[in-house]
Amino acid sequence: MAAEPKYLTGDKAALNEFIDKFDTFLFDCDGVLWSGDHVYEGVPETLQLLRSKGKRTVFVTNNSTKSRDDYVQKLNSLNIPSDVDDVFGSSYSAAVYISRILKLPAGKNKVFVIGEAGVEKELASEGVPFVGGTDENFRRDITHADFQGIVDGSLLDPEVGAVLCGLDFHINYLKLAHGMHYLRRGAIFLATNIDSTFPLHHGLFLGAGSVMVPLANASGQKPVELGKPSQAMMDAIEGKFQLDRSKTCMIGDRLNTDIKFGIEGKLGGTLHVQTGVDKKEDWQKKDAIAVPSFYVDKLSDLRHAA
Amino acid sequence: MAAEPKYLTGDKAALNEFIDKFDTFLFDCDGVLWSGDHVYEGVPETLQLLRSKGKRTVFVTNNSTKSRDDYVQKLNSLNIPSDVDDVFGSSYSAAVYISRILKLPAGKNKVFVIGEAGVEKELASEGVPFVGGTDENFRRDITHADFQGIVDGSLLDPEVGAVLCGLDFHINYLKLAHGMHYLRRGAIFLATNIDSTFPLHHGLFLGAGSVMVPLANASGQKPVELGKPSQAMMDAIEGKFQLDRSKTCMIGDRLNTDIKFGIEGKLGGTLHVQTGVDKKEDWQKKDAIAVPSFYVDKLSDLRHAA
Repeated sequence: MAAEPKYLTGDKAALNEFIDKFDTFLFDCDGVLWSGDHVYEGVPETLQLLRSKGKRTVFVTNNSTKSRDDYVQKLNSLNIPSDVDDVFGSSYSAAVYISRILKLPAGKNKVFVIGEAGVEKELASEGVPFVGGTDENFRRDITHADFQGIVDGSLLDPEVGAVLCGLDFHINYLKLAHGMHYLRRGAIFLATNIDSTFPLHHGLFLGAGSVMVPLANASGQKPVELGKPSQAMMDAIEGKFQLDRSKTCMIGDRLNTDIKFGIEGKLGGTLHVQTGVDKKEDWQKKDAIAVPSFYVDKLSDLRHAA
Repeated sequence: MAAEPKYLTGDKAALNEFIDKFDTFLFDCDGVLWSGDHVYEGVPETLQLLRSKGKRTVFVTNNSTKSRDDYVQKLNSLNIPSDVDDVFGSSYSAAVYISRILKLPAGKNKVFVIGEAGVEKELASEGVPFVGGTDENFRRDITHADFQGIVDGSLLDPEVGAVLCGLDFHINYLKLAHGMHYLRRGAIFLATNIDSTFPLHHGLFLGAGSVMVPLANASGQKPVELGKPSQAMMDAIEGKFQLDRSKTCMIGDRLNTDIKFGIEGKLGGTLHVQTGVDKKEDWQKKDAIAVPSFYVDKLSDLRHAA
């Protein structure tokens, strides 16, 4: 039985104690720092405060459509000065997993990508060859010749050893048919993340998990997930930042990704904010998927520790 | 515990007894009558024999991309003379369910279609208004204006009361986003069928269930299924043909659709053929999903009853 989450908003002593307890904070972005392109009030100042106290701040996102560079641009434009080493995204996590853990053998080391440019940029940054992705040749209707060539293999790249699925706004039957047949030929099935939904324009749309699920359904296989709450991502973060898990806190709005990610990673703490998808009612439920150790109304409440 | 399936191939007495037991035979098509455009040897003669003995033959298919008229054309071209009343497809089943069972209220009686022309033709045949489907306006990339208009509802048709998902070779994010948001606004979720795969060009591709599953995943809802093995389809068939279930036999190659359909429909018998997806090894397994009452090597083995 988890202890009751501690409410920090407005409690200066508790806020100071909370901040002192950690040397690294992992931040989910959407619903914590911003909603879409609107940064929440006081967030830049809160980050500045934590950094002024010597805390390391890492932005951990499941959004596979953007690369780390894209995130750096966004963070800087929203007055959160950052560089590429402050960001850890699910596309980068997948690229690191493929290049450093999976180590596909020569002749089978290409990745068939279902996803946007963010995935491609991160694979390229790790030197992983890929096909598919944003290639215009895959952004069209499937033809009879495609069906035939996919079945007999003449249209498949024999060097593909993995299928990596992220959020793809250009998903179509042609890409899915290729992905399915690479899996049937033994390719390893990977997903940047499996979020069922994706927040956009103040609404929810289909997330990477809902783009990947046709392949899971048709193949009967489940992908290895590389985003939150997968511990493959936590291991990669720990390896990169050499962090002390007991002195690290995960901050997020989603219980099934952010908070679960921190709990299963045995971090020193998890902080839930009320500005995103899940609310405190969600962890107060009897069958809550994950219960944080701390909560605030909004991230900028941490400023009142000063 | 089901009795051991009776093997009929080459056993003239058993074949005659089998045929005499029924007055109606329901046939799955692909894997039973034909594979793609190749009709199996002796199938037309087998159908002719059964009909000459006064048996009713009904073709029951989960392929939602084709209408009953399309099937009639195909059957006739393969020397199986048929008319529209000999065919019962999952698109027609869905159209009948919507028009006669669901009876959507005025002002909420449109159907948003994810699927091919077969679905549209059958909805039209039952007088059900629809949007989406093969409309070229939905065969394109999603734009920022789409996201905005879907969230605020300005691009959604307020009269849509149901989302019907069949196999769609032109599936894309734009259609899925519309489907998801109609569901979020309370539309009823329907699927022509939920086959995970679809046989084509001697290979397997993604079936209607794999095209529908993003919506199920993103919405957390399960659709009402109108194809085999759904008993909604059996009820519709019984209603249309006024058949005596005890004197009806379902013939098919798939255990999880055809054979299950017949067993759950409490038909007098089910016959499994070895010319399609599942083989006898599949029902010989301990945890077989369905076990037929009879089996033959191939449909044309029934000719040896004569």
